[in-house]
Amino acid sequence: MISVDVATHIVQSHLLLLPEVSSGLLDSHGKVLRESLLADRDFPPFNRVMMDGIAIRYETFASGIRVFPVEETLAAGGEAVSLTNPGHCIEVMTGAVLPEGTDTVIRYEDLEFGREETPPVVKIVMDRVKHGQNVHWQGSDHLSGSVLIEKGVKIGAPEIGVAASIGKTNIQVSSQPRVAVVSTGDEIVQVNETPLRHQIRSSNGEVLVVSLREMGIFPDRFHIGDSEAAVNQMISELLKQYEVIILSGGVSKGKFDFIPDALEKQGVVKHFHQVAQRPGKPFWFGVKGENERIVFALPGNPVSTFVNFVRYVKPWLERSLGLPAAMPMYATLAEPIFFGPELTFFLQVKIEAGEDGHLFAVPVKANGSGDHGSLLYGNGFLELPPERSEFLPGENYPLWLYRSLTGMASGEMM
Amino acid sequence: MISVDVATHIVQSHLLLLPEVSSGLLDSHGKVLRESLLADRDFPPFNRVMMDGIAIRYETFASGIRVFPVEETLAAGGEAVSLTNPGHCIEVMTGAVLPEGTDTVIRYEDLEFGREETPPVVKIVMDRVKHGQNVHWQGSDHLSGSVLIEKGVKIGAPEIGVAASIGKTNIQVSSQPRVAVVSTGDEIVQVNETPLRHQIRSSNGEVLVVSLREMGIFPDRFHIGDSEAAVNQMISELLKQYEVIILSGGVSKGKFDFIPDALEKQGVVKHFHQVAQRPGKPFWFGVKGENERIVFALPGNPVSTFVNFVRYVKPWLERSLGLPAAMPMYATLAEPIFFGPELTFFLQVKIEAGEDGHLFAVPVKANGSGDHGSLLYGNGFLELPPERSEFLPGENYPLWLYRSLTGMASGEMM
Repeated sequence: MISVDVATHIVQSHLLLLPEVSSGLLDSHGKVLRESLLADRDFPPFNRVMMDGIAIRYETFASGIRVFPVEETLAAGGEAVSLTNPGHCIEVMTGAVLPEGTDTVIRYEDLEFGREETPPVVKIVMDRVKHGQNVHWQGSDHLSGSVLIEKGVKIGAPEIGVAASIGKTNIQVSSQPRVAVVSTGDEIVQVNETPLRHQIRSSNGEVLVVSLREMGIFPDRFHIGDSEAAVNQMISELLKQYEVIILSGGVSKGKFDFIPDALEKQGVVKHFHQVAQRPGKPFWFGVKGENERIVFALPGNPVSTFVNFVRYVKPWLERSLGLPAAMPMYATLAEPIFFGPELTFFLQVKIEAGEDGHLFAVPVKANGSGDHGSLLYGNGFLELPPERSEFLPGENYPLWLYRSLTGMASGEMM
Repeated sequence: MISVDVATHIVQSHLLLLPEVSSGLLDSHGKVLRESLLADRDFPPFNRVMMDGIAIRYETFASGIRVFPVEETLAAGGEAVSLTNPGHCIEVMTGAVLPEGTDTVIRYEDLEFGREETPPVVKIVMDRVKHGQNVHWQGSDHLSGSVLIEKGVKIGAPEIGVAASIGKTNIQVSSQPRVAVVSTGDEIVQVNETPLRHQIRSSNGEVLVVSLREMGIFPDRFHIGDSEAAVNQMISELLKQYEVIILSGGVSKGKFDFIPDALEKQGVVKHFHQVAQRPGKPFWFGVKGENERIVFALPGNPVSTFVNFVRYVKPWLERSLGLPAAMPMYATLAEPIFFGPELTFFLQVKIEAGEDGHLFAVPVKANGSGDHGSLLYGNGFLELPPERSEFLPGENYPLWLYRSLTGMASGEMM
């Protein structure tokens, strides 16, 4: 039996190297960027007017002049114009190109218009005008050719905005791995079937599928019963087609747990079987070839399957997709916890965000790893180390969130 | 001009009432549950063995007996069996039905097998055995008919697991509203076009589209130029087809900003135009009929558009979909900030999760609301109230996250 830290290290030492593919702009959202995005022109690309108002030459204002005849009006999207007389102004709209010969913009709120005159005149009714104000100067954000976004980030809404502005209709992103999600066991019937008394419906497989979909990965779904021949046959087929196989169930010490044997028979090298943790101890991890096939065989109790996915599989997938190693968050334990065994304890918690900016971890009443209902009432696991038995309120421990704090829709937090 | 609080109140007073629709189980992930989910049987549905080992009658153990002949072996998924002799045991696997006549399970680790004997016998090699141990008793989690999940929650992975286990192949969820995302302005060209010097490419529309997709809403995308006739024509068409119209640009005080007029001409009642905030002040909000059409006309600078979406549109959509009002999170300001105007200031921040469970808000260098690049470097807005100008490190303010803390892929946080 190995520690959580050693298990993490072993898993993270076997990353997939996923090739890059071209994705349409909007569809690249949520994927991992594999090319650096460069500015194709200066940003802003011209001296950009930032307020509706007038553009003047500051020198004229500084000499004491306050009334300016309006030469013309320039909308955003209008071709650049020039001021012909330094004592005049040009009316400009937000987003317009600052006219040649002007350097300062005064907003409407600080002006009085005399539009009935010919040409119309405008009076500046405030004295504090700064040279260059309300102008977003060409290249002041980014110069043409500079790197806007380095590769290796997850593409969110802000990245989409930047990519759009530089004309990236297609973006190089990490391809998704081919993943098989496999539930096991004769006691499992499918969701649309009516179980006999000694059977239960599949649910772990469904939880794994949607958890992967949250990451933008669309796995295929399989089930195998407890016949040794069927297990061998299925494992052999899956290894041909899928880079990642995630099994739930069939890895404890039971007489009908053929999975580890079948995997090893097919050339999947076992790297560990048990991890010193609760829940989720009988976690089996193996690799075939030079990281060509990766197999996570997770124990079948719902909370065991889920905590292993959140703690090991998801961070491994993130790194395989090209993201940097994630740093843990921490939360403050809100109630005393006693846990005797010398195992890392993944405590089910609900994170409450205090008005003092603190994250408090309130333990969720969990009825053993067989009650998947308990996952409903929390949003994370607090990782309590094996060296201790008593954990006190106010102490801080690593937190593995399985719902984002903002995504939590229970009404109790945002 | 109204305050942020009043604007929030007005927006939230005009919720859409979206009808419910039936969704396939896996596709319901991320949607809002509109029916309560009930246990269709007891959970667990039978006395469930929680460890691989043997099932015995506790009374026999208590009388001092340690060696038990094995009557048979029962796998998970095997039909229930009965112990015929109270001095014997049945070998059982995790997930099996506890045999009739037994009440306690001893795990393999505490047993020694003598399998060569006929019948095989097993010896219990530990003294601390508790009556009923390693059995997950029928109905101990939930009784048949009890409510497992109340309606009005966002369906995440745990909810999918519970729904699967009660056989819900289809689930009632909130339907998505019909949303139009409309960029405006002659200065905008499409992403696949090459802008002239005075033009820029569209990006706000793309940011709004993917931000809505994050919520499971797939909007249609439009653009209108600065001709008054085109604006009127487009607004009229959109109001026929879309329940929600989100415009960016065209609502400041510029001479070519026809949008507010066009909306009012088509019967959209203006509820407010300006909000006392920076960025994003010229935000226009209107409603047609009895909350039949809702129009958010957002100022066109990238950060202005985005902060209004995050602060007003998204929480409004969440409530319209049937989620309870979100409570804000808070974070602790990490650096001093001076902001003079009597406006609510949405400070761009990057949240750093400390090892003490604290969320620190580090200001992001932002170059005015025209630099959408600054959104890349942060993950939220800290809402600083208008009554003050100086904001000190250590003070706590409401936080509007636009990337989940876990979704942040910059490598600096998880």
